[in-house]
Amino acid sequence: MSDYGTSDVHRIRQVPKRASYDRETVHAILDAGYVAHVAFVADGAPVALPLFYVRDGESVIFHGSRKARFMRFLGEGAPVCFTVTHMDGLVLARSAFHHSMNYRSVMVHGTPERVAEAEKARALSLFTARARQGRPQETRPANAQETKATQILRLPLVEVAAKVRTGGPLDDPEDMDLPVWAGVVPMAMTFGEPVRDIATVSAG
Amino acid sequence: MSDYGTSDVHRIRQVPKRASYDRETVHAILDAGYVAHVAFVADGAPVALPLFYVRDGESVIFHGSRKARFMRFLGEGAPVCFTVTHMDGLVLARSAFHHSMNYRSVMVHGTPERVAEAEKARALSLFTARARQGRPQETRPANAQETKATQILRLPLVEVAAKVRTGGPLDDPEDMDLPVWAGVVPMAMTFGEPVRDIATVSAG
Repeated sequence: MSDYGTSDVHRIRQVPKRASYDRETVHAILDAGYVAHVAFVADGAPVALPLFYVRDGESVIFHGSRKARFMRFLGEGAPVCFTVTHMDGLVLARSAFHHSMNYRSVMVHGTPERVAEAEKARALSLFTARARQGRPQETRPANAQETKATQILRLPLVEVAAKVRTGGPLDDPEDMDLPVWAGVVPMAMTFGEPVRDIATVSAG
Repeated sequence: MSDYGTSDVHRIRQVPKRASYDRETVHAILDAGYVAHVAFVADGAPVALPLFYVRDGESVIFHGSRKARFMRFLGEGAPVCFTVTHMDGLVLARSAFHHSMNYRSVMVHGTPERVAEAEKARALSLFTARARQGRPQETRPANAQETKATQILRLPLVEVAAKVRTGGPLDDPEDMDLPVWAGVVPMAMTFGEPVRDIATVSAG
């Protein structure tokens, strides 16, 4: 797959060796996440809102109540910065200065568009499938009123950049012999045993 | 501890029953996190940047290279929205519409201030201690050049709101008898076994 043709204004300048515009890298980071932080400007002030999302080909989609202020605002053509970050580890160096984190992140800039009514059912099923595969076929699908109450926004993957740090600490050569434990404490999002809703039991 | 006196403009309107302004709740959510998404407006466009942070009493501090564009920009008095989000579970309902997530989040609005040179050493030790307790005493501390190269910003906890969802799905009464598994799949950030940097071994 070809790289994203991200424009200069959104290419990464800080530690550019960690930047990537590769589609597979970007897709993998987006597909591993559930919540993006979506930044926008409301009444001149910045807001960063955590939102459940899913990738749909060459776009990401997110949703909310049609009545929510931010969904109305964003649906009217407000530019956003959509950021997904995975924490992969604490990097402990021999010097305080070189402590760091391992992470994978993707940043998408653009203006989201409303998903049309005719496309909503398919988009909604993507959210449900993201919660658990096969789930759209098991659950009671959204009815007309629920579908109408939900606004879905689509942000195309055009202005996109990934940034990734991996590996151990990068200490200065003169610090390498210090008697200090150095390395990485891995971090990962993990899933526990599913907890069944007790109401299911009483309902038979 | 008293509640935060968050002003009306930053009080939560969407599902207000999940909002909290309680200091202990806010502190606990902040203290459980490592990375905040910090939103600001640069050249009229929103940006959400993932940044390592630590709580210092009634403020949060975050840092970066003094030469990084965003640190210079933020150090000059740009308003930010500082958001920390923990994902606690996927909530699987009997209906697609009532699928949800359990989460804990905190949002802080304000204008960060530069931490003065004289205060930097103490602030830097808080970051190192956050990576691992006792670490500031073990590692080679930042020298004058490293300290100068680091800009630290402090955002006071004044305009603060927490939002928390816990518990199982909230299905409609008429869906309770549907033969659909419903419940919560817990999620948590977990730490793996520390991986020692191999350079330590070769250095003896």
